[in-house]
Amino acid sequence: MEVKNKYVAIKANINGAPEESDFEIKVENLSHMFEPESKEVVIKNLLVSIDPYQINRMKSQSSSQTSISYATAITPGEVIDTYGVGRVLVSHRPDFKKGDLVAGLLTWGEYTVVKEGSLLNKLDPSLAFPLSYHVGVFGFSGLAAYGGFFEVCKPKPGEKVFVSAASGSIGHLVGQYAKLLGCYVVGSAGSQEKVNFLKETVGFDDAFNYKQETDLKSALKRCFTQGIDVYFDNVGGKMLEAAVANMNSFGRVAICGVISEYTNASTRAAPDMKDIVYKRIRIQGFLAADFMPVYADFLSKTVEYLQDGKLKTIEDISQGVESIPSAFIGLFNGDNIGKKIVKVADE
Amino acid sequence: MEVKNKYVAIKANINGAPEESDFEIKVENLSHMFEPESKEVVIKNLLVSIDPYQINRMKSQSSSQTSISYATAITPGEVIDTYGVGRVLVSHRPDFKKGDLVAGLLTWGEYTVVKEGSLLNKLDPSLAFPLSYHVGVFGFSGLAAYGGFFEVCKPKPGEKVFVSAASGSIGHLVGQYAKLLGCYVVGSAGSQEKVNFLKETVGFDDAFNYKQETDLKSALKRCFTQGIDVYFDNVGGKMLEAAVANMNSFGRVAICGVISEYTNASTRAAPDMKDIVYKRIRIQGFLAADFMPVYADFLSKTVEYLQDGKLKTIEDISQGVESIPSAFIGLFNGDNIGKKIVKVADE
Repeated sequence: MEVKNKYVAIKANINGAPEESDFEIKVENLSHMFEPESKEVVIKNLLVSIDPYQINRMKSQSSSQTSISYATAITPGEVIDTYGVGRVLVSHRPDFKKGDLVAGLLTWGEYTVVKEGSLLNKLDPSLAFPLSYHVGVFGFSGLAAYGGFFEVCKPKPGEKVFVSAASGSIGHLVGQYAKLLGCYVVGSAGSQEKVNFLKETVGFDDAFNYKQETDLKSALKRCFTQGIDVYFDNVGGKMLEAAVANMNSFGRVAICGVISEYTNASTRAAPDMKDIVYKRIRIQGFLAADFMPVYADFLSKTVEYLQDGKLKTIEDISQGVESIPSAFIGLFNGDNIGKKIVKVADE
Repeated sequence: MEVKNKYVAIKANINGAPEESDFEIKVENLSHMFEPESKEVVIKNLLVSIDPYQINRMKSQSSSQTSISYATAITPGEVIDTYGVGRVLVSHRPDFKKGDLVAGLLTWGEYTVVKEGSLLNKLDPSLAFPLSYHVGVFGFSGLAAYGGFFEVCKPKPGEKVFVSAASGSIGHLVGQYAKLLGCYVVGSAGSQEKVNFLKETVGFDDAFNYKQETDLKSALKRCFTQGIDVYFDNVGGKMLEAAVANMNSFGRVAICGVISEYTNASTRAAPDMKDIVYKRIRIQGFLAADFMPVYADFLSKTVEYLQDGKLKTIEDISQGVESIPSAFIGLFNGDNIGKKIVKVADE
C-alpha cells in the first residue's frame, strides 16, 4: 500500500506577519512507515484546527519559550502538527482499528502518521453533533474557554467580564459561559459585523469595535461603569493595558493569548504595575492542556448547554489542504468569525 | 494644655523624583482638638516609617488608583499619615490611657491626633525587642514580606527564589523567610556593600549589583541555572521583564512594589506575555493590609525566628522630624540598607 501525502510546510522561519509566500505545499510518500512493528496509526485527516499560536512555533527560536512542549519549533519543510479529527486508515496498535473516528494531534496535511505516545482519542459515536465540533468546541478551543474562564478567572455570578477577540474561536465561547454563570459580559472585536454577531447571535450584553475607538481606556470605561472584575485576554498590547486601568480591586486577568504581540514584539503590553499592586490584580497565563483534569466536567456541561440551545458555537470552515496557508494568514487579519477549521477531506 | 506640633508636608504635588525643595516643615497648634467628646487619642510620635509607596500619594491624582484607600492623595500643606510607634499623651477613649505604647497610623510629625476608627493598637509589653521592631519587622514591612511570600508566592522547599531591592525593608526579610523554608535565594541590589550584606549578614545564597550588569536577563541566567520559580518584585521595570524571561513553568511573581516605576512612568515593565502564557506564569499584586487575617501566625513565627537568631532585621534610623524629607528622598537613591525609620523623639 502506498499513500501520497500532500501537506503544508513553512519554507523558512517566519518572524513577522505570515504571508502566502512563506508556505509551500509538499508531497511525501508514506508507504515506508506502514510497518506492523512501528506501533503507528495512520490517519486520514478530515478536519484540522487553524490556531494563531502556531505563528510562535514558526519563528526563529531564540526566545525563552523553547523548552515548552506547546512551543516546540516547526522545522521548515517538515509537517506541522495541529489538533484535528480523522479516520483510522491503518493501525498497528490494538486500541485503534481501521475506520475508527479519532481526534488528536494530526497535521496540516492529508494524512497523519501518529506515533505511540502522541495524543489520539476515539470519538464517542453517541455525541450527535457535527464532526467539526470535535475540532472546536469539544477540542482545545472549548477547553481553553472553559478552563481559562472557570479555573483561572474564578468568576462569580454578577461579576463584570470583558473578553477581547470576542468573536474568535475561544472568545465567543467564553462570553457565553460567562452569561450562563450570570455575569455581565462585554466583548471587543475588529468589525461592525463581529460586534453585531456578539450582541445578536451569541448574546453578549455589549460589544465594541476597537478599530473605531480612539482611546481604549475610555471605551472600556464607557462599557464598564462599575469596572471590570474579570478580563479574558486574547490580544495583549494596548487592550491589556486599558483593561488593567479599568479593573476593580481583586480583578483577575487570564492570558489565553496575545495575538497583537505575536507578529510585532513592539506592541508589548506595559500595564501600570501600580494598578496591579493597589488593586491586587492577578494576571495568569494558561494552556488549554492544563485543564485535562476537568475535561469530563467541561464536556458534560458543554454538551448539555448545546443540546439545550443555551450555547452556540460558530465555525468558519475552508476546504482543502491548499487553503490552509490563507486560512492561517486570515487569523491575523481578523478574517474569521468563530472557530477556524480546514476541511481536508470529506468522509 | 497646648501642644505645638511640628510636621512634614509637601508644598505641592510631586510628579517626578522627590527633592528637598518639595517639602516643608510646618507647625500647628493642637490644643483645639483636646476635647473629651472627640473620642480622639493624642499620640506623641516616637518612631515613624518611611516607605516608597508614599510617593504615589504625592502625585497629581489622575490615575486609576485614586479609589484605593492606601493610595489616597496627600494634600499639600496637610499632615501625612504613616505607620509608626508612639506613646499616648491624651486619651478620650476607654481602651487607651495616658502612657500606653501604641503602634498604628501616625504621622510624619511630632504628634498625631488619632480619630476613632483609625488603626491603633496597644503594644504587647512582653515582646522584649527594640521599639523600632514594631515599625519594621512586626509592622507592615514584615507583614508584606511574610504574606507576600507565603500567601501570594505559595513557595515550596527547594524552589528557586529571586528578590529585587533585596536589601530593603521588605526584601531582606523575604530572602530570610525563603531560606528558612529551604529555598535557594538570590537578591539584587544597587551596590557592592548591599551585595555583601545580603550574602554575609542575612545569608542569601547569592546576590548581584544590578548597576554593574549590562544585561539583566544574562545576570539572572547566571544566578539561576535552573530557572526562577518565585520572583518577589519590589522594583518593576527591566528587572521584572528579565525575571519573567528566566522563570520556570508555573512560576509566580508577587508584585510588592515597583519603585523603579514610581518616579518615571517611562520605565514601565513590558514582560513578554508569550512567556506568561507558555510558562503559565502568575503575576499578582498585593498590599500588606490584606494579610491581617494571618497576622497572629506571622507574629508568632517571626518572634520565634528572631529569638532563635534565625532571622535578622536591619534598620536604618535617622533622627528628628527635620530628617524625614531626606530619609524619604534617600529611598529613591538607594541610600538605606534595611528598614528606613525616623526617630522623632526619645522616650
